[in-house]
Amino acid sequence: MSLINETHDVNLKSWVASANVAGTDFPIQNLPFAAFRRKNSADAFRGGVAIGDQVVDLKVVAEANIFSGDAQHAAEAGAEEKLNTLMGLGNAYWSALRLAVSKALREGSEHQSVLESALVAQDDVEYSVPCHIGDYTDFYTSIYHATAVGRLFRPDNPLLPNYKWVPIGYHGRSSSIGVSGQSFPRPKGQTKAPDATAPSFGPCKRLDYELELGIYLGNGNALGDTISIEDAEGHVFGFCLFNDWSARDLQAWEYQPLGPFLAKNFASTVSPWIVTTEALAPYRAQWHRDAEEPQPLEYLESAHNREAGAFDIQMSVLLESEKMRADNQPAAKLSESSFRHSYWTVAQMVTHHTVNGCNFQPGDMLGSGTQSGPEHEEAGSLLELSRGGKETITLANGEERKFLEDGDKVIMNGWCEAEGYNRIGFGSVEGTVLPAK
Amino acid sequence: MSLINETHDVNLKSWVASANVAGTDFPIQNLPFAAFRRKNSADAFRGGVAIGDQVVDLKVVAEANIFSGDAQHAAEAGAEEKLNTLMGLGNAYWSALRLAVSKALREGSEHQSVLESALVAQDDVEYSVPCHIGDYTDFYTSIYHATAVGRLFRPDNPLLPNYKWVPIGYHGRSSSIGVSGQSFPRPKGQTKAPDATAPSFGPCKRLDYELELGIYLGNGNALGDTISIEDAEGHVFGFCLFNDWSARDLQAWEYQPLGPFLAKNFASTVSPWIVTTEALAPYRAQWHRDAEEPQPLEYLESAHNREAGAFDIQMSVLLESEKMRADNQPAAKLSESSFRHSYWTVAQMVTHHTVNGCNFQPGDMLGSGTQSGPEHEEAGSLLELSRGGKETITLANGEERKFLEDGDKVIMNGWCEAEGYNRIGFGSVEGTVLPAK
Repeated sequence: MSLINETHDVNLKSWVASANVAGTDFPIQNLPFAAFRRKNSADAFRGGVAIGDQVVDLKVVAEANIFSGDAQHAAEAGAEEKLNTLMGLGNAYWSALRLAVSKALREGSEHQSVLESALVAQDDVEYSVPCHIGDYTDFYTSIYHATAVGRLFRPDNPLLPNYKWVPIGYHGRSSSIGVSGQSFPRPKGQTKAPDATAPSFGPCKRLDYELELGIYLGNGNALGDTISIEDAEGHVFGFCLFNDWSARDLQAWEYQPLGPFLAKNFASTVSPWIVTTEALAPYRAQWHRDAEEPQPLEYLESAHNREAGAFDIQMSVLLESEKMRADNQPAAKLSESSFRHSYWTVAQMVTHHTVNGCNFQPGDMLGSGTQSGPEHEEAGSLLELSRGGKETITLANGEERKFLEDGDKVIMNGWCEAEGYNRIGFGSVEGTVLPAK
Repeated sequence: MSLINETHDVNLKSWVASANVAGTDFPIQNLPFAAFRRKNSADAFRGGVAIGDQVVDLKVVAEANIFSGDAQHAAEAGAEEKLNTLMGLGNAYWSALRLAVSKALREGSEHQSVLESALVAQDDVEYSVPCHIGDYTDFYTSIYHATAVGRLFRPDNPLLPNYKWVPIGYHGRSSSIGVSGQSFPRPKGQTKAPDATAPSFGPCKRLDYELELGIYLGNGNALGDTISIEDAEGHVFGFCLFNDWSARDLQAWEYQPLGPFLAKNFASTVSPWIVTTEALAPYRAQWHRDAEEPQPLEYLESAHNREAGAFDIQMSVLLESEKMRADNQPAAKLSESSFRHSYWTVAQMVTHHTVNGCNFQPGDMLGSGTQSGPEHEEAGSLLELSRGGKETITLANGEERKFLEDGDKVIMNGWCEAEGYNRIGFGSVEGTVLPAK
C-alpha cells in the first residue's frame, strides 16, 4: 500500500522508553496531536504530540528551530493555542512535521536533548478542545445503528429508502462540544408519552451516549467548490473519539420533521488526541458494497475508495457508576465495535458534504454517527443495547441500566491493530452525567 | 409601554439631513449596526451605525473619546472588526451606546463636528457578515409555512403533533452564511422522482428562497444553564433580514429522518444591518394563542411575552431577473408578510433553545423560519407560492417562474410602522443565483 512510509515501520523505537512498552496507545508510529497545557497553570494552551506517557510541547520544539522547511513551518503553526492553522496548511505540511517528529524521537536522534526539554508527562497536563470547531456535522454511517434505531422510532419503516443512496448527515451544535473530562447536568425538556394527550416538562429519563468517531477537516474548500472523492482524504487532518450524548425521550418528541435538536445539543465530548489520517494508513481496509445493494452514484465512487477507503478503528465503551467508584471497581464494558462496518467512508462523507458547494473550514468536524456493529452486542448506544428501554442490562457489579443514571461516567476507547504493524490507540474520551439543575 | 425611551421620540431630528427624509430606513430612531469598510479598501472592517444615507464609523467615534462610561466602552467594542465583543457586553452597554449615538446625531449636538468626521456615505462602503456566527439555528415559527410545506412533503400529515407544543428548530451551517450581495452557483446533488427506482445526480431544479428574520444573540449563557423566558429578550442583540436559500428537490429526497442538510447549507444570506431589539420597542405587539389551541408549557409562558412578545416586522420579497436588468425594469414583488404572525416569539425561541442547558455565545444567530402569512399571497417561498411547482407565477414583466432561474436576484426588505412613531427599516438583503458549476 503506497500510503505506508517510514514513520509506520514496526521496528522504529523511541528514546522515550514508555513509547516502546507493548500496548501503549502512543508508540512512535502514532504521534497524534492535542492542545494542552500544564495542569492548573495559566499558560496558553499549545499543540502537543503524544509519545508514550509524555507530550511533546510543539511550542518548545518550534522555538528551538531544529526542523526546516515545511516541518518547521508546521511546528510553528502547531505551537498555537488551537490547531486550526496547522490544519489549514494541508497534507504536505502535516506529513513533513510527522516525519520530523518521528525522526527526532527515534533512538539515536541528534535532536534528543532538545526534545527532552520539550517533554511533559501526560499525568501533569490538561487538554482543551484541540481546535475551534466552526461547524460540526453528524453523519449516520452505521446501517446497523440506523436500522436498529429506525425500528424503535418507526417500527413500520426502520430504514428509509434514501439510506443506501445518501450519506445521511445533519448539522450539530459546536458551542457545546467539550473535551474529555466534561460533565454536564442531565438535560431537561419536553417529552410526551405515547398515550398522553399533552407533553410534560422535566429531566430527561432516557439519557444515552453514542459511540462515534470525530473526523477533523484540514484545509477546506471555497464556497461553491466541491472536493472530489479522489481529493477528499487529503483534506482530512485526523480522527478522534466522540461521544454524542443523546436524550432519547426529548428526541422522540421533537425530531420530526427537522431532525434532532435539544436531544443532542446539551453536550458532546471529544477525546483530546487527534490521530492523523497518515498514522492510520496501515489499518485501512477495503470498502465494499454487496452486489445486490445499490451501488454509489458516480460522485461517491473511486477505485481508491474501494481498495482502501475504510478504516478498521476498533472502539469500546465502558460505564463507571458512582457505586463502582465508591467500591473501587473497574468500569464495566458495555460494547465494542469497529468503524470498518461503516456503510459510507470518510471520503464519501467529505465529498457528499461539498457536492452542493458547501464550504469546509479548517477544524470543522464530522461525526461518524454511532458505530454499531452487525451483532446486537456491538451496539454503540444504550437505546440499542436495551432495545429501546425494554430490556435491562446487568453490569459486572450487578447494577442494572436501561439508560444512564446521574453520576455515570462513560468512557470510550479506540485503537487499531494490523498484522506487521504496531498497535496504536486514541486514548480515551470520558464524560460524566450530573444531576439535573 | 415601559420599553419606550427618549431614543424613540418621533420628534427627534438629526443634523444628518438624509435621516429626516420621510420613508428612509434609517432615521435617528433606528440606529442599526453593521460591520463595514470603504469599498475596495484594504482597511479592516469595523462597526458602524446607519443614519440616513450615511454610516457612522464607530472606530473614529471610539478614538475621539467623546462618550463616557458604558457608552465609550461599548463604542470601543463596536470599533472592532466583528461585533461579537459589543454583543457580549449585554443590554446596559448596547443601550448606553444607542443613547449616546442618538444624542450625538441630534440637531444641536455638541459632538456634531466629531461625528461629521466619522460619516461615510453608504454608497461608498462594503459590508461583511457583522459578527462571527459561531452557531446558527433555524426555527420554523410560521404555522402557515409549516402547514403549507407539510402538505407538500406529507399530504396526509401536514402539521405534526409536536408543532403546537415545541418551538421546532434545527441546526444550520454557519460557514456558508454570507452578507447581502452574495452570489453562489446553483447547487448540485441527489434527487429522486417519485416514480424512479434510483436517484440521479445533477443541478437542483427547484431552487427557492425563504423569507426570514435573523436574530442575533448578545451575551450568552454557560453550558448547563437556562435563560428564563423573563430574561430571554435581554440576551437578544437585534434582528436582520435573512434569506435561507433552499433546494427543494434535494430536500425532499434527503430530509428524512435527520432533517434538511445539503438542501440548505450551500448558501444563506444576511442583511448587513442589525436593527437592535431596543429600536424595535414601538413595534411590539401582543402575542396570543387562541383559547382552543394548546397553551404553552410553563417555561415558555410569561405575562410580558403575552403583552409584548411579538414584533410587527413587515417583510417583502422581490425578484429581479436577468431580463429585468437588461430591460432596465424594476424588480417584481412576489409577496409580503409580517413577523407578527409567528406562532412562537423570540423569547420563546431563546428559552426553549437553552432549556436543556445548551449554551449561546455572542453572535450566535437564530433564523425565524420562513415567515408566511395566513393568506396564500403572503407566502415566504416559491414552494408555497407555486403550490409545490404545480402553478406558474407570472411576474410583472410577463416572465414566469415556478422556482428560481439562473441570474435571478432575490431582494428582501423589512420595515416597521406604528402609530405615533417613525417608520424604521432594515435595508435589504440581496443574493443572486449563478449557473451550476
